[in-house]
Amino acid sequence: MAGDCSVRVFERVLTDVGAGIYVADWKVTNEEFGLGERWTIEKRRLSGGLSDGVDIVAVDNGAFSFTIVPTRGMGIWKGFFKGVRLGWDSPVENPVHPHHINLEARGGLGWLEGFNEWIVRCGLENFGAPGTDVIIDNMGREREVTLTLHGKIANIPAERVTVRVRLEPKVELEVEGVVYERSMFGPNLRLTTRIVTSPGDNKVRIMDTVENLKSSPAEMQLLYHCNYGKPVLDEGTRILAPFRIVAPRDARAAEDIASFDVYGPPETGFVEQVYFCELAGDSDGRTVVALVNRDETLATSISFSLRELPYFTIWKNTASLEEGYVTGLEPATSFPNTRRFEREKGRVIKLEPKGKYRAEIELSVHMGRDDVQKVKAEIERFKVEPKIYQRPIRDYST
Amino acid sequence: MAGDCSVRVFERVLTDVGAGIYVADWKVTNEEFGLGERWTIEKRRLSGGLSDGVDIVAVDNGAFSFTIVPTRGMGIWKGFFKGVRLGWDSPVENPVHPHHINLEARGGLGWLEGFNEWIVRCGLENFGAPGTDVIIDNMGREREVTLTLHGKIANIPAERVTVRVRLEPKVELEVEGVVYERSMFGPNLRLTTRIVTSPGDNKVRIMDTVENLKSSPAEMQLLYHCNYGKPVLDEGTRILAPFRIVAPRDARAAEDIASFDVYGPPETGFVEQVYFCELAGDSDGRTVVALVNRDETLATSISFSLRELPYFTIWKNTASLEEGYVTGLEPATSFPNTRRFEREKGRVIKLEPKGKYRAEIELSVHMGRDDVQKVKAEIERFKVEPKIYQRPIRDYST
Amino acid sequence: MAGDCSVRVFERVLTDVGAGIYVADWKVTNEEFGLGERWTIEKRRLSGGLSDGVDIVAVDNGAFSFTIVPTRGMGIWKGFFKGVRLGWDSPVENPVHPHHINLEARGGLGWLEGFNEWIVRCGLENFGAPGTDVIIDNMGREREVTLTLHGKIANIPAERVTVRVRLEPKVELEVEGVVYERSMFGPNLRLTTRIVTSPGDNKVRIMDTVENLKSSPAEMQLLYHCNYGKPVLDEGTRILAPFRIVAPRDARAAEDIASFDVYGPPETGFVEQVYFCELAGDSDGRTVVALVNRDETLATSISFSLRELPYFTIWKNTASLEEGYVTGLEPATSFPNTRRFEREKGRVIKLEPKGKYRAEIELSVHMGRDDVQKVKAEIERFKVEPKIYQRPIRDYST
Repeated sequence: MAGDCSVRVFERVLTDVGAGIYVADWKVTNEEFGLGERWTIEKRRLSGGLSDGVDIVAVDNGAFSFTIVPTRGMGIWKGFFKGVRLGWDSPVENPVHPHHINLEARGGLGWLEGFNEWIVRCGLENFGAPGTDVIIDNMGREREVTLTLHGKIANIPAERVTVRVRLEPKVELEVEGVVYERSMFGPNLRLTTRIVTSPGDNKVRIMDTVENLKSSPAEMQLLYHCNYGKPVLDEGTRILAPFRIVAPRDARAAEDIASFDVYGPPETGFVEQVYFCELAGDSDGRTVVALVNRDETLATSISFSLRELPYFTIWKNTASLEEGYVTGLEPATSFPNTRRFEREKGRVIKLEPKGKYRAEIELSVHMGRDDVQKVKAEIERFKVEPKIYQRPIRDYST
Repeated sequence: MAGDCSVRVFERVLTDVGAGIYVADWKVTNEEFGLGERWTIEKRRLSGGLSDGVDIVAVDNGAFSFTIVPTRGMGIWKGFFKGVRLGWDSPVENPVHPHHINLEARGGLGWLEGFNEWIVRCGLENFGAPGTDVIIDNMGREREVTLTLHGKIANIPAERVTVRVRLEPKVELEVEGVVYERSMFGPNLRLTTRIVTSPGDNKVRIMDTVENLKSSPAEMQLLYHCNYGKPVLDEGTRILAPFRIVAPRDARAAEDIASFDVYGPPETGFVEQVYFCELAGDSDGRTVVALVNRDETLATSISFSLRELPYFTIWKNTASLEEGYVTGLEPATSFPNTRRFEREKGRVIKLEPKGKYRAEIELSVHMGRDDVQKVKAEIERFKVEPKIYQRPIRDYST
Repeated sequence: MAGDCSVRVFERVLTDVGAGIYVADWKVTNEEFGLGERWTIEKRRLSGGLSDGVDIVAVDNGAFSFTIVPTRGMGIWKGFFKGVRLGWDSPVENPVHPHHINLEARGGLGWLEGFNEWIVRCGLENFGAPGTDVIIDNMGREREVTLTLHGKIANIPAERVTVRVRLEPKVELEVEGVVYERSMFGPNLRLTTRIVTSPGDNKVRIMDTVENLKSSPAEMQLLYHCNYGKPVLDEGTRILAPFRIVAPRDARAAEDIASFDVYGPPETGFVEQVYFCELAGDSDGRTVVALVNRDETLATSISFSLRELPYFTIWKNTASLEEGYVTGLEPATSFPNTRRFEREKGRVIKLEPKGKYRAEIELSVHMGRDDVQKVKAEIERFKVEPKIYQRPIRDYST
């Protein structure tokens, strides 16, 4: 939409730190433009507790509503489609301002104190398990540091936030955010994300570009941690995908490799099971994964390109409701091991100076047997005979 | 008061993050209800410096005034009773917003950069000296982490703050706060505190409930760090309590075990002395400790239950006025050693799923010889022959 | 100006946390007083992104404008003199609120995530490379901790900010800030800075006092990191100073010791070169250093006293424009090695109880050949035969 000049587009900059623009509270609806289909976009600044000072942008296309959190790296806190909740019940209830998060806490696990989003990006310098890695410091020397769990991007506020509405059919509602992960003598990666939906649609698209602003090459990692709890996740819910390879991360995951694609009920004391996968897709690399409930009346799907996001991880965390009954579907540039391990395996992206990396995911909801059958059929088309490893494999697991 | 439905109660929610309620500045007084005895409750949001964004609730019952800091875990910054200051002069003058505190700094001593309260809770996952301990991580594996000095609770903003006033005799002024210490894959402990006083009273009650919101058991520690400087603490001030056992923490404390219950004047370079104690109480476990000045014209006391808070620590820090001339009286669930040590000694509370732990302390001020004699007499009733150890004992000290 | 009572002085307190004073947005100009020469002082609170909540005070004397950042320890973000930019293009574009900075990150390098000032103080407990050092903890015991890169002062908000204007000739525009670097059981150092210019002047003076508020002695370190990029820094720019001793910090700096005083063009992958220097001055210890561009039409100079700031460091970082093409001229109380090393060499200041340390730097801009010749001539007067070491020396380098 940004480059689409021949149509009428409404644009409003909500935040631009460099230009001194900041809008605390604001709302726009279809009525302002005499458009028939109901929609709203609303910006608010939260107050009090750990959410004090957090900016949110709530988009409601009439059927699908979701809440973007610019203060938390343009993640999506939660969504609702016709009354069905997307996301999950983290023990951490409300959006936590990054200034309350110490990523380095507990040996690099501080990220978990703010983790409650439906969709949260992990990256950009690194994602995955915390671990030591070598960086080059200001003196040009190698320096071993601890890279923290899932990196920094989810805890960096956006420097620019813009709302755009395409006012001609097909109407589009877009929230663009620009987030910089940068430091003197460190990485300088710019994430530009456009989050787009249309009135009445059952889907939202996240279109991201990560650019290396340095004049030297830089590593980059990007993972979309897409998290679902009840009602999408429930006993008997299945994950459908055109699996080519599936391998358990560890012995714990191997225990239940036979049912890696089926979910159990909430279970107190359940220890997470993680499966590393590679998928098949169409000739352009496009693929689809879905969560389908037991009676096949409700599904959510994620569509993306294997050229952009070639590795896929399933995080099964069917713990008790109180402790976060949730599964994460995680299309990514690699697996969420330590960056050091992923680099050894050749799975870390290297961006040239000014190099860009584009990735897009489309999140859909399917209600009723007919719609669920359609997405099942779509995935069926991509299917191949999967290679399912019974034990962790050396190429995937540390 | 919360459950007391047959009387008229005024209630005002000042903060409820989940409900989108936040009141920056607000005040209520007796005049609003046509009540005769003067009192005020005033909410303010501080601005500038390290206090920027800190919420305070100042309660003045006409004789006793004190300032609650919701942003700092519902601690009480300072109090005044008829012009007598309660609290102390920390080098850190004003309330520090938790986002300026890095608890992990300097090997886990960052808590000290914000420490200036009259009453501050230590806990809830742990309190005491920083030290390594083993937690269970997301992968179900043991992981050694550093638990930081005195835990997190004092640096977590309250998610809900409510003011209640019982409008019929006996009028009560209550500030309730709810603070969550929680993380994905971590503890999920909810502190609900009610801080209550009545018009003209010489006391304030702190009634706390800590609940384990998980579906699995969780450890919990709770200590009330009650801190007094001038004028209550002065040369010749004594601590009176029904001591059963007293033991010096270390060789430094052992040096002056003979006078462990008497305070000296401010002394530059004084190194803290800590005494670990167990107390006697009445048949319900209720006990009282008091600080009494030399000429017995001024005293402060703390009343609590040994069933809730069975261990009592005296922190003598009669350093120079500039460096914090202060004593801490610390009723607690254990001694402030590392959690690992306290667990070994069986002094760490284990809460069942949804289990609750209640604790209450009542803080009083006694002015004039008559009132001081009364509190002395009260303590006298509980007294037993104390066992005073000359050296640190293995059961108390690491 | 503060003590100058016989003249008319306008004073406005913008922040005083203890007194409950805080002004978010405010402006004063010459017109308010009927003064002829144009000037303005403007206070603003920034919103959004990493700058959310940052206070800035912009001073414009009609020719020289600069932006003070009280929230970042009263550093000066950037300046302009008659359209010439002072400062540099850090990868970090806007002022970063300290609550987004974790100084302990990456082994003590977190300071770099907020580093973008023209003038930033390093200190006060320590500055220089991160490294372990021994402090005395609350128990009077030695404790090894990591002191972080360049210390804390640049990431502590000022507790008091006052604007003063001397309304009689010579009119002076002053911003005073008070910043405390303090902790219970830690240092308690108070920085009082007065930043002063006059309408139309080509210079700004920074007059600092650091006071040890403790009743015991305390170490103190203070370095002025004065940073210049384009246009002052460019290919062929030279640093002029009355060098007595020059030594490369390390082998990397030694490579180009022959041209230590000349700058190259931006160069991708350039690794910083640091030179440790001692300078000559006049009989009062006053000295001047300058950056002069190749055709000698533009220069900036820094004047200071060797009695206050006896050590001088040159940081050459002629990396690509994207990565921060910049040089730092750093008058200081010592060299920016670890504090432990500097203490061994006797270069760490020890302040007596209530002891004060004063330091002042004057920053000037010189445009046109005539003015540049004048500052060259001034430096020429102090010059002596320098001792230039080809290799790092043991007294300066670890």
